[in-house]
Amino acid sequence: MPRERIMETARRVFRSYGFSPIDTPALEYLEILLGKGSEETDKQLYRFQDHGGRDVGLRFDLTVPFARFAAQYIGQLGTPFKRYHIATVWRGENTQRGRYREFMQCDFDTIGTTGVAADAETVLVAFDLLSALEVGGFTIHLNHRGILVGLLEKLGLAEKSVEVLRSLDKLNKIGPDAVAVELSRVAGTSTEDNRTLLELSTLTGTNDAMLLKLDKLVTGNQIGEAGVARLREILAAGGAALSAAKQDCIRVEPSIARGLDYYTGVVLETTLRELPEIGSICSGGRYDNLAEIYTKEQLPGIGASLGLDRLLAAMESLGLIEPVRTPAQVFIPYFESARLGDYLRLAAELRAAGLRVEVYPEPKKLGKQLQYADKRGYRVALVAGEEEFAASECQVKNLASGESTKVLLTPDAATLVAEIRRSLAN
Amino acid sequence: MPRERIMETARRVFRSYGFSPIDTPALEYLEILLGKGSEETDKQLYRFQDHGGRDVGLRFDLTVPFARFAAQYIGQLGTPFKRYHIATVWRGENTQRGRYREFMQCDFDTIGTTGVAADAETVLVAFDLLSALEVGGFTIHLNHRGILVGLLEKLGLAEKSVEVLRSLDKLNKIGPDAVAVELSRVAGTSTEDNRTLLELSTLTGTNDAMLLKLDKLVTGNQIGEAGVARLREILAAGGAALSAAKQDCIRVEPSIARGLDYYTGVVLETTLRELPEIGSICSGGRYDNLAEIYTKEQLPGIGASLGLDRLLAAMESLGLIEPVRTPAQVFIPYFESARLGDYLRLAAELRAAGLRVEVYPEPKKLGKQLQYADKRGYRVALVAGEEEFAASECQVKNLASGESTKVLLTPDAATLVAEIRRSLAN
Repeated sequence: MPRERIMETARRVFRSYGFSPIDTPALEYLEILLGKGSEETDKQLYRFQDHGGRDVGLRFDLTVPFARFAAQYIGQLGTPFKRYHIATVWRGENTQRGRYREFMQCDFDTIGTTGVAADAETVLVAFDLLSALEVGGFTIHLNHRGILVGLLEKLGLAEKSVEVLRSLDKLNKIGPDAVAVELSRVAGTSTEDNRTLLELSTLTGTNDAMLLKLDKLVTGNQIGEAGVARLREILAAGGAALSAAKQDCIRVEPSIARGLDYYTGVVLETTLRELPEIGSICSGGRYDNLAEIYTKEQLPGIGASLGLDRLLAAMESLGLIEPVRTPAQVFIPYFESARLGDYLRLAAELRAAGLRVEVYPEPKKLGKQLQYADKRGYRVALVAGEEEFAASECQVKNLASGESTKVLLTPDAATLVAEIRRSLAN
Repeated sequence: MPRERIMETARRVFRSYGFSPIDTPALEYLEILLGKGSEETDKQLYRFQDHGGRDVGLRFDLTVPFARFAAQYIGQLGTPFKRYHIATVWRGENTQRGRYREFMQCDFDTIGTTGVAADAETVLVAFDLLSALEVGGFTIHLNHRGILVGLLEKLGLAEKSVEVLRSLDKLNKIGPDAVAVELSRVAGTSTEDNRTLLELSTLTGTNDAMLLKLDKLVTGNQIGEAGVARLREILAAGGAALSAAKQDCIRVEPSIARGLDYYTGVVLETTLRELPEIGSICSGGRYDNLAEIYTKEQLPGIGASLGLDRLLAAMESLGLIEPVRTPAQVFIPYFESARLGDYLRLAAELRAAGLRVEVYPEPKKLGKQLQYADKRGYRVALVAGEEEFAASECQVKNLASGESTKVLLTPDAATLVAEIRRSLAN
């Protein structure tokens, strides 16, 4: 149930920006999948032969199928093209290790444009998504891959970027002094290089102050300067759509990188204020070419992914998942066996007024039915016996407080609906 | 998009009756799946070994996994239990035959009760579902398996039920005379038997008249009488929740059977008035024991399934699928390159008012952007250039009529939102 609520919220937010739902098959030809992720995903692939003897596999993410789809249909669809996709993916691990072998991914992408508008909008989607999910405060961390790339180029370390990134990644674990030693050993950096690189990873301050410091660090290098300028543009454009208080949720964070290969421009992560240790809930970034493996057409874009399972785990930790056991709001016990039609008609009238209603399916004793209602988490029951039906009335019973109110059923259900809504709100 | 709209409508209707969403994994251990459908489904199974060397398969329907799930968890869940499940299933056929190898199913079931209330409610759910889907007129056909079973028992033909059903099934193809000849040949029926059996398959009239005729046909046989009595109760209880005009959509139809083995009580089919030849859109019935293969606990229930792909095909034939190419309602071209923040802020204000809005991501020429809007099916664009921003106004342009209206953006977006809604409604 909470999973479905999250998915519906995500769909609503994506659509409010004009993202279209697309759905691709779970099964893809093996050659589409193999070698398109990592060695790890190749190993985890569930693969077999279909009934026509063709090698097929279950998708391990939604990006590879989207790249295949885009290569195939972008001519018809036209660019820019905005899509979202919420669906199951499979990764074969030994489930005894406690890893899911099937789980949901929730991706949104804007392809066919290099515009800063799409970058800013991706940040705004992440913002609206986290707000609509009601998971408390959150921070959207922004960085641009060009900044580190530019800085490394400026320091003459472009060839050593893998080694440098790997060492910087250990900052929290081993501290700055040990990182400096390692940097000099694996990348041949000078003391001055190390100071600069460590400074980049530990900058703090407001976004404006941060951008000025970053400007200074990369000054003279074109890639680096362009990266900082792009961040500035994103913050200005996105910020215009947000109140000052909301702008505080967006932070430039030079230490985030999001892997080495895929992203080429802005990258983003999103953490919960009350549970930062669980990691990023919504992550993504800009890439140069989505479908280069499948087509010659250049498809630059930006996308991000909501981590559904991580989000659910976080919501559970934060006590945000109510043990709701029914999607309905009103319970109607059925205890006068000759009155089934009346109970069903009552339920139909309430549904017509937009309420969700369950009628118990057998004329058991009232007490037993109320136990069932309690177990399912109902808060309001509508009780009507022979006496009530004869007087054209019924009782609206609040199952939490035990309080009951008699309501007339005539001339229409309006009074009843109002009383039920009042009781539900209590 | 239409598929997603159907799924959302179904979810809304199911929940309005208190059905809970459940989700089971797409992959099940092979022993759960093998031999639980037909020989055909065994053959069509996609199967392989997982990374722990266990035999697994992709589900071929949602009923078998639900039976497994119910056997495992019904102790915790308690009965009655109402669930719906909308998900993908897989059947391996040679796709060159034009059959899907993966498709959606959409099931709802009430288990753990034999009550007539659940039967009546299933009919009401089907009714609400078809109404909410807005596919024009429809008929819900009801029958009870006990009627034919009782009649065959009464005629001393209980052992020949398979042969009799097979012959009666050919009625439309070969006509009553040929069926009578075949009946006598394969089931040894008398001329009188044939007359009675053919009468059952060709009864017409109002529900009340039909029930009286059925009463006469099965009189003296307990199973048959109970079947007719049950239909009468379902019609009375369900009918109480429906207006007279709506009751006309529900027809007793003694010729529908829905296969031989699975169903044991009421069965239902639903056809579209304008497209009856496409077959049943929503079908189901009552069964004695859902999970007997997996548990000793008796789990009687009733369920039905919405045929999503058939429904989509029908909607397409009926011209009910609009070529909507975007889920958004309002298009904002971005053509003053320095004003990105303003465009994004405008969009945010409209979204806050519940509108779905797309901002074009690059400051291209207005004409080109309006072409894109047209291709995506937008009907309303919000055009603002330097002149409009300077005067704190913008133009609401109806893309169908070409008509433009100037609207002030201050003091808030209320006037703008009202004008957009007016233009969308045109």
